[in-house]
Amino acid sequence: MEANENKIKGIPEPTVRRMPQYHNYVKNKKIQGEIYLSAPAIGRSLRLDSTQVTKDLAYTGVAGKPRIGYHVETLLAAIETFMGFNQIDHVFLVGAGNFGTALVGYPGFDEYGVKIVAAFDNDPKKIGSKIRGVPVFHIDKFRDLAQEMNVKFGIITTPPQNAQQVADLMISWGILAIWNFTPVNIQVPKHIIIQNTSIYANLAVIMNKLHHKLSIENL
Amino acid sequence: MEANENKIKGIPEPTVRRMPQYHNYVKNKKIQGEIYLSAPAIGRSLRLDSTQVTKDLAYTGVAGKPRIGYHVETLLAAIETFMGFNQIDHVFLVGAGNFGTALVGYPGFDEYGVKIVAAFDNDPKKIGSKIRGVPVFHIDKFRDLAQEMNVKFGIITTPPQNAQQVADLMISWGILAIWNFTPVNIQVPKHIIIQNTSIYANLAVIMNKLHHKLSIENL
Repeated sequence: MEANENKIKGIPEPTVRRMPQYHNYVKNKKIQGEIYLSAPAIGRSLRLDSTQVTKDLAYTGVAGKPRIGYHVETLLAAIETFMGFNQIDHVFLVGAGNFGTALVGYPGFDEYGVKIVAAFDNDPKKIGSKIRGVPVFHIDKFRDLAQEMNVKFGIITTPPQNAQQVADLMISWGILAIWNFTPVNIQVPKHIIIQNTSIYANLAVIMNKLHHKLSIENL
Repeated sequence: MEANENKIKGIPEPTVRRMPQYHNYVKNKKIQGEIYLSAPAIGRSLRLDSTQVTKDLAYTGVAGKPRIGYHVETLLAAIETFMGFNQIDHVFLVGAGNFGTALVGYPGFDEYGVKIVAAFDNDPKKIGSKIRGVPVFHIDKFRDLAQEMNVKFGIITTPPQNAQQVADLMISWGILAIWNFTPVNIQVPKHIIIQNTSIYANLAVIMNKLHHKLSIENL
């Protein structure tokens, strides 16, 4: 545990953010039957500097052989173990609206060791139903189920006006990491991990730039 | 056009990114029957400094009245006109897999003036089908349909290994703005607008921090 601890501690966030790219690339190469991969080849495909590739992959504990490169299978296993992609974490999602429903049962998360095992809402019409096999509970059941299933990671896809309150409740119920898909700046205590995926903010930036561009062209 | 042009030109990106938050908040207040809203009240709810709120909203051309604040209906209309939320832009999506399917027909985009009107794929099983009423075409139809429907905005939800090629094609077919949901760093010419929504990178950061946190607690 301690060795793993030390390894995790020192990873820069940009390296962590690139790991899914490496993982995806190496996995595809394995499927294609490749045995070895060089850092420059990985770099060219992912448009990264090969020195960066070598530095990033060194965190997984695997080194490439000179002139041969990385053993594909060994590297894939090392990335998965290092990032915990091969141990499934159970996650709860609050807000079984349109976007929440899209995320529940989305098979893309499985590869990264994440499984949404329950959804929560306060709409009586949704409670008791299932989304692609995942049950929807009343939010009142969150605390007990989280404790029972040892869930520490919660996703928020509620309407924005409920996001802060849901986050406060989740934290009081033992959640340590929150993934926020609402456009709200959720405030959390310092020890809580929070990541925002600002779909609407990104969309607003695109639309604004596009309208700007089109208005110039039409002047 | 020129006045609008000048207005759009000078907006800082952080202001643009906050506009969906203001929009959502003001819209809810209108539904709740509120007539006026003050900048400090908006700031408290969205956890923003009220000076920032005043500065941001000034870009829409609406000013609050001293001691009364913003007229809710006027402010809402101003944000929608300013951001173009009330004029629908047609958007094409390439990659009708799981995540693409989730985005197609997702009603949350309507509010922001965006409608995915066609999806494209190269899988014969998907071509000719409909996703919540939106037709799925072979990628070969993209060029003609984009021209016919004057579509300038494309979303990429393909497998990562196809993302760059799809982007290159889209651009050669007249697309000016790309929203990339794959983990790939897509390279585009300088005049093309690109936004990345890095779902997996965000997920990797959360998982990494959470595993780190839990490993400390278990030491």
